[in-house]
Amino acid sequence: MCNVEKIIETNRAFEENINYTFKDKNLLLLALTHSSYTNENKKWKFPSNERIEFLGDSVLCIVISEYLYLNRPDMAEGKMSKVRSGIVREISLADVARKIKLDEYILLGKGEEVTGGRHRDSILEDSFESLVGAIYLDSDLETIRKFILTSMEDIIKKIINGKIILDFKSRLQERVQHDGVLGISYNIIKEEGPDHDKKFKVNVEIDGKVMGEGIGRSKKEAEQNAAKQALERINNA
Amino acid sequence: MCNVEKIIETNRAFEENINYTFKDKNLLLLALTHSSYTNENKKWKFPSNERIEFLGDSVLCIVISEYLYLNRPDMAEGKMSKVRSGIVREISLADVARKIKLDEYILLGKGEEVTGGRHRDSILEDSFESLVGAIYLDSDLETIRKFILTSMEDIIKKIINGKIILDFKSRLQERVQHDGVLGISYNIIKEEGPDHDKKFKVNVEIDGKVMGEGIGRSKKEAEQNAAKQALERINNA
Repeated sequence: MCNVEKIIETNRAFEENINYTFKDKNLLLLALTHSSYTNENKKWKFPSNERIEFLGDSVLCIVISEYLYLNRPDMAEGKMSKVRSGIVREISLADVARKIKLDEYILLGKGEEVTGGRHRDSILEDSFESLVGAIYLDSDLETIRKFILTSMEDIIKKIINGKIILDFKSRLQERVQHDGVLGISYNIIKEEGPDHDKKFKVNVEIDGKVMGEGIGRSKKEAEQNAAKQALERINNA
Repeated sequence: MCNVEKIIETNRAFEENINYTFKDKNLLLLALTHSSYTNENKKWKFPSNERIEFLGDSVLCIVISEYLYLNRPDMAEGKMSKVRSGIVREISLADVARKIKLDEYILLGKGEEVTGGRHRDSILEDSFESLVGAIYLDSDLETIRKFILTSMEDIIKKIINGKIILDFKSRLQERVQHDGVLGISYNIIKEEGPDHDKKFKVNVEIDGKVMGEGIGRSKKEAEQNAAKQALERINNA
């Protein structure tokens, strides 16, 4: 049995998780292929999922926009825009990816694996978008609409009702003020990639001690993720 | 005959322009209703087109993304992203709007009318996106896909082939250097609206003389539009 067939066999359990069976199994394989995997496995027959992620991002966008347009006639466009950003932002999608156990099926290079890439929000988000693109291409808008609205139902409701506080930086600030902390600072550790695809890595220091790190497509997003990690560390301490 | 019926009658000619007949004429009326019109006509039965524009923007995005994904397998996601931005940017959509004579049918308030709003790129872009949202809601993805790919065919081809030089600032720089000009400066004249919906107004001075003005959703976009106007003025001088 060749490698591809073995993986297709393994993926059946994932198809049960998401309650969708691919007509074209190759589309699922493509969606699961992280660039670090293709870089390390030159004989792998698929390219990385970066192109299908680009498509999946648009699919997600139209489904959420249409949902808000039709179901929330009370929301002005500014509010719809904010809510949509909240729903499609990294941490929301990463949470959904974890819920459907997508993290267990991503094909990752060894380098990413040892540095914990499988659990990183940005990789989970990209993989979820790729999956959305793959289901859409394998079926139609109606099918992917149902998939998105079902798998994201809780998050959509919570964000619409303002129940997810998205601003981790403010939460961290409040939390440490309470503990009598003197200073929080955010520092850019790394900045890479071309303008249209920048990645930032930021850490957060609390009274001079690094308490969290975050990656993001903007400084703001990286800072939010760093604050999120610091909060988790403080809450678990 | 009431006002609405009169306008629906007038709109038949527009439906012929776009080769699409609305089942629900109200959707077309909604798409044509600029906020300046609702502000001045309190009895008008439709809200402004801002919400349906939000939807139309997503529809446009998925259609262009899918087109590039399926038809240009040679394009990496970074390139697809750049080309898509080029296609959906203000000047491209405003050009398409003019081609289908959408400008003649927009319902505009008197204030906007006297200041030339009917010919402004930003209003034309918003109206085109609203129209896309309306056709999509009135039909389906397949129908709006055909409409977009037909009405935008020329622009899509030109942008993919790099035949539209989108960077007006560089073009202006080259042009005036040729004329021995000493300095070009861009100045923000106005900045308004909340963070998620900012509008910037910028002018461009060439050797201290204002040669163009531009409006945009970012400083960069406003500067590009100002440079475009300056170029037109120089070319027509």
